[in-house]
Amino acid sequence: MAGAVQSVVILSKALPMNGGHGLYSYANNSTYQNKAIVAVKDLITEAIAEKLDTSFLSSSNTICITEMGCSVGPNTFVAVQNIVEAVLNKYQNLVHDHSRLPEFLVFLNDHALNDFNTLFTSLPPDRNYYVAGVPGSFHGRLFPADSLHIVHTSYALQWLSQVPEEVEDVSSPAWNKGRVYYSSAGDQTVKAYEDQFAKDLDCFLHARAQEVVCGGLIILLVPGRLDTTPHDRVFSNISYDILGSCLMDMAKMGITSQEKVDSFNIPIYFSSPRELEATVEKNGYFSLERLECLPLEKTQNTIQQKARAVSYHIRAGLEFLLKGHFGNEIIMDELFDSFNKNLEKSQVFQLGQTYSLFALLKRKAT
Amino acid sequence: MAGAVQSVVILSKALPMNGGHGLYSYANNSTYQNKAIVAVKDLITEAIAEKLDTSFLSSSNTICITEMGCSVGPNTFVAVQNIVEAVLNKYQNLVHDHSRLPEFLVFLNDHALNDFNTLFTSLPPDRNYYVAGVPGSFHGRLFPADSLHIVHTSYALQWLSQVPEEVEDVSSPAWNKGRVYYSSAGDQTVKAYEDQFAKDLDCFLHARAQEVVCGGLIILLVPGRLDTTPHDRVFSNISYDILGSCLMDMAKMGITSQEKVDSFNIPIYFSSPRELEATVEKNGYFSLERLECLPLEKTQNTIQQKARAVSYHIRAGLEFLLKGHFGNEIIMDELFDSFNKNLEKSQVFQLGQTYSLFALLKRKAT
Repeated sequence: MAGAVQSVVILSKALPMNGGHGLYSYANNSTYQNKAIVAVKDLITEAIAEKLDTSFLSSSNTICITEMGCSVGPNTFVAVQNIVEAVLNKYQNLVHDHSRLPEFLVFLNDHALNDFNTLFTSLPPDRNYYVAGVPGSFHGRLFPADSLHIVHTSYALQWLSQVPEEVEDVSSPAWNKGRVYYSSAGDQTVKAYEDQFAKDLDCFLHARAQEVVCGGLIILLVPGRLDTTPHDRVFSNISYDILGSCLMDMAKMGITSQEKVDSFNIPIYFSSPRELEATVEKNGYFSLERLECLPLEKTQNTIQQKARAVSYHIRAGLEFLLKGHFGNEIIMDELFDSFNKNLEKSQVFQLGQTYSLFALLKRKAT
Repeated sequence: MAGAVQSVVILSKALPMNGGHGLYSYANNSTYQNKAIVAVKDLITEAIAEKLDTSFLSSSNTICITEMGCSVGPNTFVAVQNIVEAVLNKYQNLVHDHSRLPEFLVFLNDHALNDFNTLFTSLPPDRNYYVAGVPGSFHGRLFPADSLHIVHTSYALQWLSQVPEEVEDVSSPAWNKGRVYYSSAGDQTVKAYEDQFAKDLDCFLHARAQEVVCGGLIILLVPGRLDTTPHDRVFSNISYDILGSCLMDMAKMGITSQEKVDSFNIPIYFSSPRELEATVEKNGYFSLERLECLPLEKTQNTIQQKARAVSYHIRAGLEFLLKGHFGNEIIMDELFDSFNKNLEKSQVFQLGQTYSLFALLKRKAT
């Protein structure tokens, strides 16, 4: 029974991307994620060709896929189409009677506060799969046992289910005073974030272990870093620190309070291959079939263009969270204007490293 | 493959109920439908106990249910809970090892323009089933083959996929000049509505025939009339005619044009048991296991209370359609004030008959 599922859903804080199709919407500010998805297209095709168990279709002719942390598109549709095509390619080579090719049911999952209305009205009209939306946190159970064949999640697992408690506890050595992020914080704060990521990933894998059939795959794409990259050399981490310094400036100007900034922390973590591998192994339900650390292609844009893109991108992801914490004290346009200017003046475009971790996991037989 | 599905989806016009939780929202103005759902609870329990094929769970332990035309709740959750409990009751009597009880995946379906955001944020927190939302018209395919065990649709199939073309064709004898509805129109107009209902129901059954496993059930609740009830004695029909006369009054006052009213028609039809049975038989994929014509319990409210409830109820259902056709010409508050007054003065509460048709269909073996 699904009775126990809901408590997990409630624990995990819902942080939707900006909905709709406006200037700061996620739909219009997610080309960064799109690049990552395109870059891994070949990896996905290969993974499915080599690793997907084809004995699924003995009992049913439907392949069930879930895209977890789908937000509002359009990236999610590109990723889904890649997977569906890869499976079809595989079956076309195996099955002689093409009327026996599988059908696809794709479950698009995100938090219940995600803008599913926008997602549903922008579905590709010529899609060759059936679609359902599944609201709820992927850190808990969302599907019946043994009901999924392929799980895909792209640029979602870096979001923590919550800010680690110690980080917000003034009596803890991990308390993150004067910052909004871990990357330039003390070791205890970093450790708290690292542990939270491992705990969340373990919850994710534990839930999926019940839902994914034996031989089923998890394809996981997450922004990360090399094992050798220090946290404060990760492009996004540097950017979040700059955003933090803008908030501190606003506190100094009396626009908001120091306490308000101290108690604000961004629930995002950039993992390394070694950390990811350790969590998958400890969890035990999945074999790690492949793990790659992919550099993101650099654009030829000017610093000004890059700064604006980063600013819009981060605004699409964090505006909901910032408004929830600072209310009307902080005007978003002012914050992101200042962020944009500080990005331009910073070294982030020279020093920041951008990697995605690609992992392929296979459900072990029980 | 699902390739051909989408054309049907596009043909079928999306007419969402009013979303959100406001004064005229469907969520707050659907007690009428709720009464019907409560009245059939025992019928559903009986239907599942007697007719549901229990050999489903040999291959999978999940029962897949869809609630079609779910709108935004809360009625849909009552209906789903009834069905889940009925299935659990049945299995608890059959299965000795209660850890082998089935899990439930419930697909909540409505048009893509339905307010799924409201639906998803008002899901019962203590539900014992998994949930997915499925956007799209139930007149076409929405699910893979053989993927559903129970289909439930309540107060949705009376909505036609479109106004019958002849009714809007000035050169046709079925042209519905001076009215917005068929119930007091000429025979050709009535016939056009009747045929459209039969055609839509056939499309619905044809799509479900592919999706429902052999032995699976369709539980169908739809507002209707006795075989012997003339169209102009149906409670809702009289109400729609009164709404039509309000619109005609507005045309006479120059608020809107006569042409605008002539070209507006409400795409709803109230079927009779005989008509429903004929369509199911002609379709051929399902056996009609039960068909009941249930009178709706009368309330003890005053005329004024009843008129206001009817006015709010019809506004929740038709506002989207009226705004789409009349734009800003007609102010909804004025239209429904006038409607409310005319309802109070009318004979609808004395003369109008209110019945629901309950039908239980079982997918025949192929």
